[in-house]
Amino acid sequence: MIVYFDFMRIKDDIKQEALFEATIKLVNETGFAASSVSKIAKQAGISPATIYIYHKNKEELLISTYIQIKKNIGSVIHENFDDSLPIRDILKNVWFKMFNYIAKHPDYFQYTEQFSNSPYQSLVDKREIEKYFDPVINVLLRGIEQKIIKNVNFDILTAFIFYPIVALSNARVCQDLDMNDENIETAFTLAWDAIKL
Amino acid sequence: MIVYFDFMRIKDDIKQEALFEATIKLVNETGFAASSVSKIAKQAGISPATIYIYHKNKEELLISTYIQIKKNIGSVIHENFDDSLPIRDILKNVWFKMFNYIAKHPDYFQYTEQFSNSPYQSLVDKREIEKYFDPVINVLLRGIEQKIIKNVNFDILTAFIFYPIVALSNARVCQDLDMNDENIETAFTLAWDAIKL
Repeated sequence: MIVYFDFMRIKDDIKQEALFEATIKLVNETGFAASSVSKIAKQAGISPATIYIYHKNKEELLISTYIQIKKNIGSVIHENFDDSLPIRDILKNVWFKMFNYIAKHPDYFQYTEQFSNSPYQSLVDKREIEKYFDPVINVLLRGIEQKIIKNVNFDILTAFIFYPIVALSNARVCQDLDMNDENIETAFTLAWDAIKL
Repeated sequence: MIVYFDFMRIKDDIKQEALFEATIKLVNETGFAASSVSKIAKQAGISPATIYIYHKNKEELLISTYIQIKKNIGSVIHENFDDSLPIRDILKNVWFKMFNYIAKHPDYFQYTEQFSNSPYQSLVDKREIEKYFDPVINVLLRGIEQKIIKNVNFDILTAFIFYPIVALSNARVCQDLDMNDENIETAFTLAWDAIKL
């Protein structure tokens, strides 16, 4: 293996990371409309011209930030993914990983939730997102095939096996609920009962 | 019964209604930060001074708009509420009424979802909202008591019996799913399986 440092590349990565964080921070604090490219650039400590190297316009920057978060989630939930486990165990592992990720990055989730309720969501091709979730989607499909999971529309399955996590992780909505391991496990019982045949 | 017209009151109601609709429209289009009291007043066709008669400030206006939507939902789902039906049937009726209401007022839901993911949510006392949902909450409590419904934290129950509706009604998220009566009924089966003992 040849290891070499590409300083331009590292510099680029740092800028990209700063831009990613700045976009999320500014949108969460002031909303999509008030988050101009120049304000995001200022927050990121880079020039607006640099943003335009990577992104055609503000819209494209907001969308790619959303896709990047989804890609991160997809990568985290599939860490040490063991396809040979029983389907219930695989889904339970994914369930816990999602909760842990949201607990670590509540700001990312605030961004994706705002995004999902904005007109920008219509500009995202669902397939583009789904590819990051292929392994877990394939597990659900296998479960349907093996008559372990209900054979219903995929959006309906998703509304019960992934979506409640978003609600339960929103401390503003669940003011009285501490999502400790015990509660995460209890909630998984409900999710599993919802989708299992 | 004495019927009389209070013209000042009617005029007030019309203004209140215009203000309610204008707040939702402007926030949905431009976000919370960009929705100033003066812009909302212009959109509603009333003077900013009139807004300040009813609301101390912008924050108070945004919060009361949120509470008003929740109050409307509470009132709609409890129409013809028949406490004597089996618990599953009561919840199924509420489930259908929620879907119908969201289909009629997607803009209200866009507002409440944005609100739930904004810092404003922390300023709302949950009890203030819950009182509009007392009859259905009591049905859930009765179900727990009668060992029909799982005895778990209420926020967890809610995440499965109400929250999936929001996800499934978001046409931007569920791009391939037509929420016709058949799909609404299928989804209810999953919700019921999640919460039932």
